[in-house]
Amino acid sequence: MSGRVTVVGLGPGDPSLLTESARRALDGATDLIGYFPYVARVPEREGLVRHASDNRVEVDRARHALSLAAQGRSVAVVSGGDPGVFAMAAAVFEAVEQGEPGWRDLAITVEPGITAMLAAAARLGAPLGGDFCAMSLSDNLKPWEVVTARLEAVLRADFVIALYNPISSARPWQLGAALDLAAGIRPAETPVMFARAISRPDEAIRVATLSEADSAMADMATVVILGATTTRLIPREGKPPFVYTLRSVKGVA
Amino acid sequence: MSGRVTVVGLGPGDPSLLTESARRALDGATDLIGYFPYVARVPEREGLVRHASDNRVEVDRARHALSLAAQGRSVAVVSGGDPGVFAMAAAVFEAVEQGEPGWRDLAITVEPGITAMLAAAARLGAPLGGDFCAMSLSDNLKPWEVVTARLEAVLRADFVIALYNPISSARPWQLGAALDLAAGIRPAETPVMFARAISRPDEAIRVATLSEADSAMADMATVVILGATTTRLIPREGKPPFVYTLRSVKGVA
Repeated sequence: MSGRVTVVGLGPGDPSLLTESARRALDGATDLIGYFPYVARVPEREGLVRHASDNRVEVDRARHALSLAAQGRSVAVVSGGDPGVFAMAAAVFEAVEQGEPGWRDLAITVEPGITAMLAAAARLGAPLGGDFCAMSLSDNLKPWEVVTARLEAVLRADFVIALYNPISSARPWQLGAALDLAAGIRPAETPVMFARAISRPDEAIRVATLSEADSAMADMATVVILGATTTRLIPREGKPPFVYTLRSVKGVA
Repeated sequence: MSGRVTVVGLGPGDPSLLTESARRALDGATDLIGYFPYVARVPEREGLVRHASDNRVEVDRARHALSLAAQGRSVAVVSGGDPGVFAMAAAVFEAVEQGEPGWRDLAITVEPGITAMLAAAARLGAPLGGDFCAMSLSDNLKPWEVVTARLEAVLRADFVIALYNPISSARPWQLGAALDLAAGIRPAETPVMFARAISRPDEAIRVATLSEADSAMADMATVVILGATTTRLIPREGKPPFVYTLRSVKGVA
């Protein structure tokens, strides 16, 4: 079989944050598969077939990509950010494991991208400067008790925590519960960063203290970063503060 | 002051994994500052002054960059991977906070890059497909008890764990101790991935089980990824297996 699937990370949004390797993978594709706003980011060109779909069908989309590749097509599955971080790559490999045996012989590659927390951190300063975690706050794919057990573990161990999928119309209360849990463990003045649509025209950043932080500061396009006890603000005249996390830790966590 | 500091992520090594935005930042610099192998990755050009230095002087290097910018220079501080992940960005902001008040008014920006764990994950499949942590195993900047307390917390909470700075000649035993700690908590067959110098000519990848994993499989250029209980291998005929982590979690962690 000469078909291929490349799972491509489009980065946070601005085309200048794409890698050259990802761009080449898009240029070489015959078919594009992905959630429609990501497919829409790729410029039209002759011979490129677009298969845009809704957000809630990751494994179906992955199977579609693999079956097109099995027919000899060169398929780019597009994800925002990095495809390996709460995005399409895991769904593609899940479909490979559960699907046709021949799919294992396809050329399947992943092109990494700038994931939301890295783009957000770069805009803010260096809030991920120490040990950190990335968690999805969605309880669509794991029980809420798992989310809270994990969150409590990393709050107590003083990791910086990037929360992906913090809120949606179907999951309106989970972020508030997570912030309440954090407020019971970390100091009230801990910086909490809400980074929305970084590098896109509707980019918005807000830095609050944990006691001010409110789930209304986030939406589906936001990554929320909870600072550690070593996360600091550098105030500036007439500009937003820099936020960074110390590289050093003095005592026991 | 018209000077500027841009902290630039060079990605894992291959120039095609640089973002266009990072490349532009390098093109616009008058001065390059960084650990010498990173400075060496940037092509020579007329008018570009190179200040390469050793690895153990991050804050001195940051102060140097800021003082050059205060003189009106356009300084690019270069890091491998992403500058905000165990790299130069936090050192730059630490130097800003502790340094001349005027440094806070400089234009200081960060250009994100593909950090080692994302490059490694992309080569392997999707091992970061669930919740994950990034930890530095170095005890140069934090007590070893903090490292082990954090590691134990995330092992018990079933995060995938990317270990940066796993081993060096000055820190020969820490990775072995970390693997022993993991072996006491996670099943013997858990996949452990050793990803070395991804995208560079000396790239090497090894996937072992936790019971086979040995600190001799890593060196300074390696990122080690400890799988979660939901990390799976997909065997392939005559090729290395794909590794991915399930997006779903069934029970309580």
